[in-house]
Amino acid sequence: MELQFLGTGSGVPAKFRNVSSIALKLLQERNAVWLFDVGEGTQMQILHTSIRPRKIEKIFITHLHGDHIFGLPGLLSSRSFQGGEEKLTPIDIYGPIGIKDFIKTTLSLSSTKMAYPVHFYELSEEGGKIFEDERFIVHAMPLEHGVLSFGYRVEEKDQGGRLNADRLVELGVPFGPIFGRLKQGEVVELPDGRIVNGKEFIGEPRPGRVVTVIGDTRKTKQACLLAVRADVLVHEATFEDSEEKKAHYYFHSTSTQAAKIAKEAGVGQLILNHYSARYNNKDITKLCNQAREIFENTIVVKDFDEVEIPYRK
Amino acid sequence: MELQFLGTGSGVPAKFRNVSSIALKLLQERNAVWLFDVGEGTQMQILHTSIRPRKIEKIFITHLHGDHIFGLPGLLSSRSFQGGEEKLTPIDIYGPIGIKDFIKTTLSLSSTKMAYPVHFYELSEEGGKIFEDERFIVHAMPLEHGVLSFGYRVEEKDQGGRLNADRLVELGVPFGPIFGRLKQGEVVELPDGRIVNGKEFIGEPRPGRVVTVIGDTRKTKQACLLAVRADVLVHEATFEDSEEKKAHYYFHSTSTQAAKIAKEAGVGQLILNHYSARYNNKDITKLCNQAREIFENTIVVKDFDEVEIPYRK
Repeated sequence: MELQFLGTGSGVPAKFRNVSSIALKLLQERNAVWLFDVGEGTQMQILHTSIRPRKIEKIFITHLHGDHIFGLPGLLSSRSFQGGEEKLTPIDIYGPIGIKDFIKTTLSLSSTKMAYPVHFYELSEEGGKIFEDERFIVHAMPLEHGVLSFGYRVEEKDQGGRLNADRLVELGVPFGPIFGRLKQGEVVELPDGRIVNGKEFIGEPRPGRVVTVIGDTRKTKQACLLAVRADVLVHEATFEDSEEKKAHYYFHSTSTQAAKIAKEAGVGQLILNHYSARYNNKDITKLCNQAREIFENTIVVKDFDEVEIPYRK
Repeated sequence: MELQFLGTGSGVPAKFRNVSSIALKLLQERNAVWLFDVGEGTQMQILHTSIRPRKIEKIFITHLHGDHIFGLPGLLSSRSFQGGEEKLTPIDIYGPIGIKDFIKTTLSLSSTKMAYPVHFYELSEEGGKIFEDERFIVHAMPLEHGVLSFGYRVEEKDQGGRLNADRLVELGVPFGPIFGRLKQGEVVELPDGRIVNGKEFIGEPRPGRVVTVIGDTRKTKQACLLAVRADVLVHEATFEDSEEKKAHYYFHSTSTQAAKIAKEAGVGQLILNHYSARYNNKDITKLCNQAREIFENTIVVKDFDEVEIPYRK
């Protein structure tokens, strides 16, 4: 479970900082990649990573501003060419009302033939639980950005402890279906007659990890609710601390405001992104330092940076 | 008058070859830049050139496939932020019916506020003369690409000879409005009483230059008509010579077919572009050599290459 930042800029692209897109790599968890926003050029950024577009399973759109969605038609249509022998899996797109119209219109006017289905989930203004399966739950909540803009909370359900496979191999337990039964905690008779209790080989259960992605917004309580006790909070920081008025006027946040949310919500780590194109790398270090005065475990990221989401100790 | 290639690939972007866009830089001629097609990421490519988006005056869209238009909403909206003190000039967009709907829908759904007007010229299927002023004429003609796809011919009108300013300065003619009158061929009395005949200081008239841009198409007579005696013909070469059947099936051209058009039309130079993403640089050299067997003055270009359009001798 890792985040990779495909575009960390806001509004317009800068030379080495693209517009918004974040990948949540869930390769071990579900052999899939989820995206948050798809600004123009996201498919080009992906070419410079190890992400394979065919693995993209879900796309969460925070809001419909161009720097968050103009890369979506190209990404979806290029993925159609990545089929090869294997059949392409569907993509689910979640976002504000209008996202379906945007994709339908652009793909239809461009006569794009899709090689896989796209399912749309246009979210109501209240937000709520928008996805759940045996391993993950995703919640959305509206933020404050002038246009409808959602924050997302991805919760991994608590995980059973890991099977200590090394110890089983040492004991000469033959590799195969027996391992699966032991992992379920069963008591199993081995071919040589020994009795083995799976529970003795299973480690402590691990609490599921939580990642919250807060896209464009003013400082808002909703962000705090979505981020409660998250392991990682990704929060926009379009402006530095001294530009709070400007941030408010343009419905954005400052570094300091993001840090306050992180502190109030009691998160593990804060990742700032979505910086104004005016800011250079030195300015961004300043944003980071401002945030650290309030919430110490803060980092800033640049395009292509990867951050692993660790299990809490 | 120079061409700069912002994206030389076809269909999907490759790591170092973006989807279609070509800039015709007319900085000396009209302090403007014209674009042919705006594939996704064109605005990012422009960040790595000396082109200033505010100078973009006209955009000619060959056809509505995504790899030729998905960069247009982003380019148009980002340009709104490049105003500064000066007022932004309008942009004229020429292309097949549907281009207006594409832009209106994407800009409206993304709540994009434009800081300058955009004028649309949706072209009829017959094509014809689509623009003329005192210096340039532009013609469009439909090609063969399955969907309506236009080729464009940009003709510069014949230019009067240049005023030999160096010689006038040597003769002590005072710099200023007198130069303008002499350039018009007038006979002028200088402040010191000498009589100077402008015509004696004006060089030979120069025939205007012609650039033809042929986007996606099968080999077609229309391309040849648009390219007649052009100084430079830019022609798609999606496939190499041996893939003529595939080229026909997908409504594209081979390197050899492009060269045949160049030869039949008697152009000065042929520039191949729009290569399949499968081709590496070695393959592209092969395309070039294939074309040169038929039309010697052929070059291939990669992203960011610039080619000056010289006056014919």
